Parts: sequence; structure tokens; C-alpha cells
Amino acid sequence: MHQITSISLGQYSLIYNAFSFTIAIMCASTIFFFLRSFQLAPYYRTAITITGLVTLIAGYHYFRIFASWEAAFTIVDGVIKPTGQSFNDAYRYVDWLLTVPLLLIELILVMRLPRDQTVRMSVKLGTLAALMVILGYPGEVSMTSSGRWLWWVAAMIPFLIIIYDLYVGLRDSISSQPTSVRGLVSTARWLTIGSWTFYPVVFVLPMLGLTGGDASTAVQVGYTIADIVSKALFGMFIYLIAVRKSEAEEGQQMPAGGRLVSGD
Amino acid sequence: MHQITSISLGQYSLIYNAFSFTIAIMCASTIFFFLRSFQLAPYYRTAITITGLVTLIAGYHYFRIFASWEAAFTIVDGVIKPTGQSFNDAYRYVDWLLTVPLLLIELILVMRLPRDQTVRMSVKLGTLAALMVILGYPGEVSMTSSGRWLWWVAAMIPFLIIIYDLYVGLRDSISSQPTSVRGLVSTARWLTIGSWTFYPVVFVLPMLGLTGGDASTAVQVGYTIADIVSKALFGMFIYLIAVRKSEAEEGQQMPAGGRLVSGD
Repeated sequence: MHQITSISLGQYSLIYNAFSFTIAIMCASTIFFFLRSFQLAPYYRTAITITGLVTLIAGYHYFRIFASWEAAFTIVDGVIKPTGQSFNDAYRYVDWLLTVPLLLIELILVMRLPRDQTVRMSVKLGTLAALMVILGYPGEVSMTSSGRWLWWVAAMIPFLIIIYDLYVGLRDSISSQPTSVRGLVSTARWLTIGSWTFYPVVFVLPMLGLTGGDASTAVQVGYTIADIVSKALFGMFIYLIAVRKSEAEEGQQMPAGGRLVSGD
Repeated sequence: MHQITSISLGQYSLIYNAFSFTIAIMCASTIFFFLRSFQLAPYYRTAITITGLVTLIAGYHYFRIFASWEAAFTIVDGVIKPTGQSFNDAYRYVDWLLTVPLLLIELILVMRLPRDQTVRMSVKLGTLAALMVILGYPGEVSMTSSGRWLWWVAAMIPFLIIIYDLYVGLRDSISSQPTSVRGLVSTARWLTIGSWTFYPVVFVLPMLGLTGGDASTAVQVGYTIADIVSKALFGMFIYLIAVRKSEAEEGQQMPAGGRLVSGD
């Protein structure tokens, strides 16, 4: 938890509204994924259930983040003042500790690899992802620039292994996917690599000269955008891949928009 | 209820974030088990529904525990102070009174023993589990070390009978399980014995010299980890056993990731 003292009313409001916007996106995405999962071919329901769990967990944490942000400041006659209560940074890390491994697992599951390969990749990448988040946290709450850099470098090691594994691993398995989803899988691969790279970039912003309210705004808005892209938007790609693969495997043509298996 | 007076801000925050993390895990696990239960062979749906009820009940209690923890302290300008409100320990025991018998029942159900044996074991182990929790509580709130030890010893009697029954009972029934789940059942058996043993160990920490904030942190974080392992992680093993047994009994090969019965 840490105390943010200098922030303008405009910056405070921007962050406040960004958090609320994210709650709406995460909750709506969750309901969409859960309701649609029943229409997919049975194999893909696990992946989409997990996709919905990721946005559910993120929605819960944005509720907490929003409440913590609201409690940290008070506005009296148009002037913003800190209340003295700390803003809890840890919610993001607690969230990532759960959601980042699950995001990797949803991507691995939707690829429908052989069972032993699915288990092996899930355990390896899930563990590396948890390690990455655990190593990042001491840096986030570090008061010194050197402390931030040290933990950032430590967290970048598992990060780079994951990115490399996804880059190479997914490239190799694209050729085994039905032709109708190859473009989507390729996009999901780049979306993962792109949105994930956003996090360490946001992390270093306060070390590159940004201070006070500017640093807080850049970090909070930056992480929020990264969360929306890597969880809700990425989840939509996972869903579309599951829809197309359900069609291809069940040999049924489904209309656009994701109507699926006719056994309902 | 009891009053915790000396705790550092770091200890307070660690416990606070551990409680919030557990709410997220329990809620996400509940939704996962409930949604996935429909994909299992009908016999196993009861076991997985109960698995979800355990995490639901735990999620509810962690909401209460979190609120009680938040109300017990206030942070003003980075300094932590007790508000004078007590932290309610009883939530954990009320939770265990419900969830511990249910955990045993979900394990017994997923084994699919003959009906009379299922009923006999559920009644016997469920009753012993409730007795164990009831005997532990006076010790938890006891102000004296001798009081803690006395009730600890009393609660250990039903505890050891349960552990012995699981150790011997599950070992004997492993050979009647399909080969594809024997490894998982064996792991679930050790996970139960291991995670359950964690509780009496955490209980004795304040009697082994830990005091004040250190004792509170060890007890709260210790019980929280034990709850996550024995409810959510154990529940995942029960789920995987149910998936594999559904496959084996329906004579269908299912791909990785838990695709299941087509009879839906």
C-alpha cells in the first residue's frame, strides 16, 4: 500500500473513471463467456469457462481497486485532498498471480494439443508466470529507483522465457490448426506478446522521469488498458477461435456471430 | 472474538491481501465447479456440486473475515492503529463446521463405493470432522497456553481417527479405481492428509513462542494457505478424478482439458 499525495483533480477523475469503465467491461465479458460456453463443442467449454474466470477475477479486483482509490482521496469544494488512507497497489499483483497463469492455460487449451503436451505447457508456463508476478511486486512497492530496476530485471527473465515459448511454440502449432482459425491464432499470439510487453513498459515509466500525479496516472491508466486488452479483448479472440474450431470439428457451418452446435 | 493490538503495517497488509486473494480464488473455483459439473457423467455431478459448495461457503466466510479484519484497524498517514473493534475468529470455525464434513463427503462420493459404504463412511467421518472442529474452538479462543493445549489434544483424537481411516480406507479402494485415476486418487489422499495436518500445526504456533503480530500473521496466513490447498486445490483434484472416471465409465476417450460426456 502506498500514499499518493500530489495529484490533480483531472488526473484523479481520469483514473476513477478508467477503473469504473474496467469493472463494466470485465463483468460484461464474464457473463458473455459463461453464457456462450454452452454453445461450443464440449472440448472448448473448459477454455471459455477459464476465459470467463479471468475476467471475473479481474472484475472483482477492479471493484476493490476502485473502492481503495475512492477512499484515498476526498474532494471538497472542487479541491482534491488525500484522506491519509493508502491506495492498495497489491490488488493488481494478487490479481495477476491468479489471472496470468490462467490466461496462458486458456490459450494452451484452445489450441487442443495432445493431453500430455497440454499439461506440460500449462505447468511450465503457469509456474513461470506466477514467478514473474511474484518477482515484480517488490519492485512495484520499492521506494528507490534502483530497487525498481533490480526486481524489474528479475521479473523479465521468466517473462522473456514465456514470450519466447509462445512465439516459437504457437508458431509451430499453427500449421496443425484448421485453416479457418490460423489467422485468429496468429493474431492471438501477437496480441499476447504485444499486450504483455505493455506491463513492463508501464512499470518503468516512473523510473524515466515521471513523478507525482503524472507517474500515478501513467501507471494506473497504463495497467488498466493492458488489463482490458490482455483479458477481455484477448478473451474474445479465444472465444472466436473456439467458435471456428467447434464448427470445423463438428463439420457444421455456423452463421456469423457465434451460433454453434445444434444440439441445443 | 479477540483483540490484536501489536501488528506492523506490513503484517497487516500481508494478511489483508491474503484474505482478498482467497475471496477471488474461492469465488472463481465455485463458478468453475458449478459450470463444469454439467459436463460430467451424472453420478459425479453430486460430488462436484458439493466441491463447489465448499468453496462457496469458504468464499462467503472470507468476505466476512476480510470485513472483520478491515474494521479492526485503521491506517492514518501510514501508521496502523487498532480501532478497538475485535477481529472475529469464529468465522473460521463456523466455516470448518460446514466445509470439513463436506470435503470428506466429496472425496467419498468421487470414489463411487457401494451405496451402504458411502453412507456409512460419510456419517462416520462427517461426524468426527464436526466433533474435531467443535473441540478445537475453545482452544483457539483460550487465553492460556494450557487451555490451547488441552483442547488441541481433544481435537486431535477425532483428527487422527479421520486421517487413519482415509489412509487405510483410500489405500484399499485405490485398486478398485480405473487405472487412469489411480495416480490422482493417490495424490488426493496425500493432499488431504498433508493439508489437514497443516491446521493443527498452525494452531500450535502461538504456543511455541510466537507472540503479538508475528503470531497473528503466522496463524492467519497459515490457515489461509491451508484453506486454499484443502478446498480449492483439493477440489481441482476431485474434479479431475471425476472427469477421468466419467471418461472411463462412458468408454469415451476425451481430449485434454476436460472435454466430457457427449450426452448433453
